[in-house]
Amino acid sequence: MGPPERKRERTRRELLSTALEVFWVNGYNATSIDQVIEASRFTKGAFYYYFPSKRDLAQAVIDDAIGELTQQRWLDPLAESSDPLATLVVLLKRSRDHSTMDHLRRGCPLNNMALEVSAIDDEMRARVQHWFDVWIGGISSALKRSQQDGVLRADIDTVELATFVVAGFEGAISLAKASHSEETLQRALGTLIRYLEDLRTVNNSAATADRTGGKR
Amino acid sequence: MGPPERKRERTRRELLSTALEVFWVNGYNATSIDQVIEASRFTKGAFYYYFPSKRDLAQAVIDDAIGELTQQRWLDPLAESSDPLATLVVLLKRSRDHSTMDHLRRGCPLNNMALEVSAIDDEMRARVQHWFDVWIGGISSALKRSQQDGVLRADIDTVELATFVVAGFEGAISLAKASHSEETLQRALGTLIRYLEDLRTVNNSAATADRTGGKR
Repeated sequence: MGPPERKRERTRRELLSTALEVFWVNGYNATSIDQVIEASRFTKGAFYYYFPSKRDLAQAVIDDAIGELTQQRWLDPLAESSDPLATLVVLLKRSRDHSTMDHLRRGCPLNNMALEVSAIDDEMRARVQHWFDVWIGGISSALKRSQQDGVLRADIDTVELATFVVAGFEGAISLAKASHSEETLQRALGTLIRYLEDLRTVNNSAATADRTGGKR
Repeated sequence: MGPPERKRERTRRELLSTALEVFWVNGYNATSIDQVIEASRFTKGAFYYYFPSKRDLAQAVIDDAIGELTQQRWLDPLAESSDPLATLVVLLKRSRDHSTMDHLRRGCPLNNMALEVSAIDDEMRARVQHWFDVWIGGISSALKRSQQDGVLRADIDTVELATFVVAGFEGAISLAKASHSEETLQRALGTLIRYLEDLRTVNNSAATADRTGGKR
């Protein structure tokens, strides 16, 4: 018999949020499960009740914690936006302008995990891939709406563009992580942002300035 | 007293090439020095004569083996080209069109290393950063020549563009590695390639088709 359902769910989320943090800062392979347990306020026994191994823990971190982040930071704002192309630009500007040295050092938790596990653990790779697919799919659907609204150029393949945006974003974050350089991040994301802004139809260029102007 | 200078140099290069391979396939943190020794044809004693620790080995892999790859694959062709912008496009097309599943799985050795060591070992991070800087610098100098030749649009900041190209390339390789998908690679690199092609000045658009046509 374990703890009651609601408490169990709360504890599980707390452990996952600690584990996300520790893996994010140190990397997955370089982190021991003891480091995660130490960072949590729990005993080994309690911890192993929820996650029998480091791999079980990491899978739950990908499925739940990183998935939730992707949903909150990217997919929800895009899904709720009346001008998804402008919102995508705002999200990229946020990363460009508000990344602290701490953010630069950490990089992206999904890509960190991707590069560590893809070659050595195919089941974990598939879980990472799932979130890349959902992320790219969410951006693509949002851009499709912009296209239907006549805001995004009609000749653009939105799946291709969404893939390019995620690739450009991940590459920019990787370079910034390796160089600890805000300037590198700004250069790479700045070019991506200008590229997206140039894909607005001529009729809608003025609208962009109005709608996003206040947030600049 | 060790082996004579020339033999020592040859053995060292051989060990580095084995280590590059093993780290590339499995990742740095997930690889033990014993795995590298086993993959080489050398005894532990001989191996430790050259590289006293896994970290010493990895530093030499970054400085020499990955450095040499960067030089051969990117910097030399660009430095020797009479049309660097066209050559950059050719290099990206080669990655887009000739990546086997084995390439996709491995990803980029520099970025793999970057994401594993940046957060936990600042000296190794600095060595990785050095090669990103050299790589971006080499592309930027080459693009500067294209600009002086009137081939690349004059309003382009070549450092910014070079940073964006490396970021877009690395992100595309990461996504392909996580998804084992050639299609993802083609989508992300295809967009980057079209972006670069659109930066040729109008006068030189026809020239592009001529010069790179035979290699398509």
